[in-house]
Amino acid sequence: MKALEWMGDSLKILDQTRLPVEIKYRMAATYEEVAEAIEKMEVRGAPAIGAAAAYGYALGAIGYSGELADLPAHMEKVQHRLAETRPTAVNLFWALRRMEDRLRDQHEAKELAEIRQALVAEAENIAEDDRRVNRLIGEHGNAIVTAEANILTHCNAGALATVEYGTALGVIRAAQQAGKKVHVYAGETRPFLQGARLTALELMNDHIPVTLIADNMAGFLMQQGNIDLVIVGADRIAANGDTANKIGTYSLAVLAHAHGIPFYVAAPTSTIDLKVPSGQDIPIEERNPKELREVFGVQVAPPEVPVYNPAFDVTPAKLITGIITEKGIVTSPYSVNLLKMMVRS
Amino acid sequence: MKALEWMGDSLKILDQTRLPVEIKYRMAATYEEVAEAIEKMEVRGAPAIGAAAAYGYALGAIGYSGELADLPAHMEKVQHRLAETRPTAVNLFWALRRMEDRLRDQHEAKELAEIRQALVAEAENIAEDDRRVNRLIGEHGNAIVTAEANILTHCNAGALATVEYGTALGVIRAAQQAGKKVHVYAGETRPFLQGARLTALELMNDHIPVTLIADNMAGFLMQQGNIDLVIVGADRIAANGDTANKIGTYSLAVLAHAHGIPFYVAAPTSTIDLKVPSGQDIPIEERNPKELREVFGVQVAPPEVPVYNPAFDVTPAKLITGIITEKGIVTSPYSVNLLKMMVRS
Repeated sequence: MKALEWMGDSLKILDQTRLPVEIKYRMAATYEEVAEAIEKMEVRGAPAIGAAAAYGYALGAIGYSGELADLPAHMEKVQHRLAETRPTAVNLFWALRRMEDRLRDQHEAKELAEIRQALVAEAENIAEDDRRVNRLIGEHGNAIVTAEANILTHCNAGALATVEYGTALGVIRAAQQAGKKVHVYAGETRPFLQGARLTALELMNDHIPVTLIADNMAGFLMQQGNIDLVIVGADRIAANGDTANKIGTYSLAVLAHAHGIPFYVAAPTSTIDLKVPSGQDIPIEERNPKELREVFGVQVAPPEVPVYNPAFDVTPAKLITGIITEKGIVTSPYSVNLLKMMVRS
Repeated sequence: MKALEWMGDSLKILDQTRLPVEIKYRMAATYEEVAEAIEKMEVRGAPAIGAAAAYGYALGAIGYSGELADLPAHMEKVQHRLAETRPTAVNLFWALRRMEDRLRDQHEAKELAEIRQALVAEAENIAEDDRRVNRLIGEHGNAIVTAEANILTHCNAGALATVEYGTALGVIRAAQQAGKKVHVYAGETRPFLQGARLTALELMNDHIPVTLIADNMAGFLMQQGNIDLVIVGADRIAANGDTANKIGTYSLAVLAHAHGIPFYVAAPTSTIDLKVPSGQDIPIEERNPKELREVFGVQVAPPEVPVYNPAFDVTPAKLITGIITEKGIVTSPYSVNLLKMMVRS
């Protein structure tokens, strides 16, 4: 089950909003369809959003039939449309920048076909990089997992959130492959239930022991000594190490800290945004109140009740034991160590 | 909208499992039906469970048509059936003890009718006491609410959890009636969604401003300075002040402590169980895994995923700023001060 698959002239997107009840795909043949799939969270997870946007950008060129000279203006429109889909995950902007750079490299191209090919190749590179990077995150992360570990995770930072393998779940996969006895507590992750719907499914498919809990049970499990380690993904990491991730992550970090439990973030370096000095500067998306008033279209609250529905929160660097990237594990002081790692080739 | 209403020969129970979508009542004419309504959480909330069980006990006598001499044996069966419905809330056992005491007082009665009348009267007393006690909790609790306050609550410790008025929500009602500007953040309270379904409904009906959040958003709100006070109910308070309440309460207490936010428990003294020395000795009910795998019958997780579903957790006394009862507000050291209050007439 893959989040994304390039079909040569369209992007096959697994509609994750219907999982695990229905396995439905969208064959996106235009950039607009890709944008819609990102907005509706049919594809979600920072790395998967980045790769999807890259393919969407390539589809923007494939669908263009105007003059070669007007292509840059068209591609700017494509870029804007894809960039406006979701504000928090930085991988989206990172991937679009890579695609724009590649387009600029083609300024001497004589044929549209040549440019299209270059853009598809770049999207493929981005996807391939993600596969490789996640394996490396898994390898590095394996070092912090003990021989037997009850690991709490939140949302879905798995294969379904990436092109393949996953970040937080990649670490867990690597630990299991290394022969460690891991058991995962998956927080269901209201309102969108990525933990219940996606993480539970992924881990069961891979025969990794998993127990589903409501998000509000995490503290009680920690109090009972049943959590050895917390690993989550990230949507954007500021230069000082502050990390935006799925709403609820901050609460888990505070709880882990209060119980002396290590709290790790697993993410590719493309999630690190050195232009953003601290978490305060990361825009936090607010989503539709219906996500709380309804579950799968079923009403669970008074239809008119006011709702606060931030999609992300920011965990301050001081609560993060380490950030696991493809280049290794970064620890405090993050302002120094993230910069050092990023300038290292 | 009342949780319970005595109809002379049956107990009218509001089926809270269907709220706010459907307003449905069960007319319970037998103790077995009352037991079932408690088990299925059609009636829930420690004080409401206590009152319902008392009426159920009276119905046990009303439905009895055997010899007067065999009544005690029958009533023991009734007591057992009602007592086994839910293990955590102590008000259930407290109310049943009051009913048994009243039955024993009737040992010289010559007629079944006389005993029935006495038991109904005692159930009515228990219900009336709850109404009175909740008003007093509100009066005392009002003292800790500032002129303008954003209050976070969890689950439903409102009119629907009691015979009338509520405990935690009683404090909020009293504060609003006293002219204070209160705004409530209601945690939806997975898995049973009492916050989304019941607290939101109650407060909207009373025109008390309320905003619904997912449980995992509480930390983020506190981090932003948007919570001034946390007030929750209780299902059982141990002699040392440790408090069992709806799952998720402990996480909120840790979060409140980490952010320097006052954390109060509002409960009648019938919730205090001096026979239980500490929270470790409070039995924690585990409920059906389906509550997490499904929402209102709609599947939201792989049907076979293992689930951990404790209905309650225990907040250690050291995280509790004060316990608001009908006799006043108790603060640390709880072992001393709870005992003092309980022996005071």
